[in-house]
Amino acid sequence: MSFNKIVLIGAGRVATQLARILVEKQKTILQVFSRSDESAQQLSSISGAEPVTKISLITLNADLYIISVVDDAIETIAKQLTLENKLVVHTSGSVQMKTLSTASSKFGVFYPLQTFDKKKNISFSEIPICIEGSDKQVESDLITLGKELSKDVRIISSEQRLYIHIAAVFASNFSNFMYLIGAEILEYADVDFNILAPLIKETADKITKNHPYLSQTGPALRGDFKTMQKHLDMLEGHPEKKDIYKNISKFITSYFSQQKNK
Amino acid sequence: MSFNKIVLIGAGRVATQLARILVEKQKTILQVFSRSDESAQQLSSISGAEPVTKISLITLNADLYIISVVDDAIETIAKQLTLENKLVVHTSGSVQMKTLSTASSKFGVFYPLQTFDKKKNISFSEIPICIEGSDKQVESDLITLGKELSKDVRIISSEQRLYIHIAAVFASNFSNFMYLIGAEILEYADVDFNILAPLIKETADKITKNHPYLSQTGPALRGDFKTMQKHLDMLEGHPEKKDIYKNISKFITSYFSQQKNK
Repeated sequence: MSFNKIVLIGAGRVATQLARILVEKQKTILQVFSRSDESAQQLSSISGAEPVTKISLITLNADLYIISVVDDAIETIAKQLTLENKLVVHTSGSVQMKTLSTASSKFGVFYPLQTFDKKKNISFSEIPICIEGSDKQVESDLITLGKELSKDVRIISSEQRLYIHIAAVFASNFSNFMYLIGAEILEYADVDFNILAPLIKETADKITKNHPYLSQTGPALRGDFKTMQKHLDMLEGHPEKKDIYKNISKFITSYFSQQKNK
Repeated sequence: MSFNKIVLIGAGRVATQLARILVEKQKTILQVFSRSDESAQQLSSISGAEPVTKISLITLNADLYIISVVDDAIETIAKQLTLENKLVVHTSGSVQMKTLSTASSKFGVFYPLQTFDKKKNISFSEIPICIEGSDKQVESDLITLGKELSKDVRIISSEQRLYIHIAAVFASNFSNFMYLIGAEILEYADVDFNILAPLIKETADKITKNHPYLSQTGPALRGDFKTMQKHLDMLEGHPEKKDIYKNISKFITSYFSQQKNK
């Protein structure tokens, strides 16, 4: 089946970007739920949906319910919903599908693997969408919906999804934090952060051509302890940065020496 | 002055990409030096320069000598060169300019801030080039050369350059290692690494719009200890990954709580 009447539960970054793309694809969003009146109103203005701030006001007239709230709140919300045989999905990387079984007999996962921003709109068609369904029909219906939004739709189990989410924490959250540490270090030298932009873009771009194993460079890979010591000396007044520099460098050195010995 | 006759000392990634752009800009590379015959030949074939494998064979007829070798070797090579008043520069982020003072009375630094690959050619015009000169004339001559290659040429002191290099290690080497860890975690789940490509590209792309402070997301930022514990449980069999996950998450949590209390 094709879903045309949707209720969005949540009004954060993922919900906002989902609302945009669903409206663009001619879907009707009946309601948006958020505990915060302001967030509900905001998302309502994008999607044309009725804003609701109480779970009890959620309509039973939709054919798809998308729960897109912080991981911790999914279970609580699922327990408050009674959707009978209407399909309910969540959009989380780390929450097991079966958490939704209290809300309906039909449930699934619709996890778009991307870092979202409320304001910065991105092309949805490239985003991998990880699908899981409580039965084959649900799975197939969610694949149909996924393909309306993206070229890259994949069947992914709850366990695989959890690994994907951990990998994403490293590849995205932790990378961004590395940029942030870089930005602070430049402040010590009164150099503008924009000097790093071409380097950051090229580093990310390389992985589309080569596995990151082949793109690794730097003093830790080369075993250049003299340069690493210079860097550590400069970070003397910044113990947390110094520690993380040491820890990651040590891991890089041991990782590549293990690979050589294989 | 404009430099037209150049000797390249070194045949690694930086030297190779410099050779390409210099030839493209109609510069004559007289010689390329590498201790390895193969590397010297390889770079000679790109640049049309004479390959030499002995320092004593380096000509005195050039007007610029670019030392582009591993950091540790720069001092040794500078001690072996006697270039009188010919300009000699190195391309390193971490080596002080004055290391070159034994080779000539005119010396400087020409540090292109980018991650280079021997094979993947990149547009040089966007690369920030950090310039330092032993005197104002050298500085101004190097700026002229820099501007022939790139739109972004900056005067940067040895101390600033060292900070820039540390920042680059975080923003590029360490980010790439985060991608690599992500790739390995996906292997545990039998998921192809290409699933992370749109996420990695978008994470890098965000910094051109926002400071990375504003782009930080993820369980550690949210203080979502339940999700972090799930991730750590999944990494149980991989102690190094588990440690680095813990260390970086702890730093993110403490960093953002300090910012809030400011």
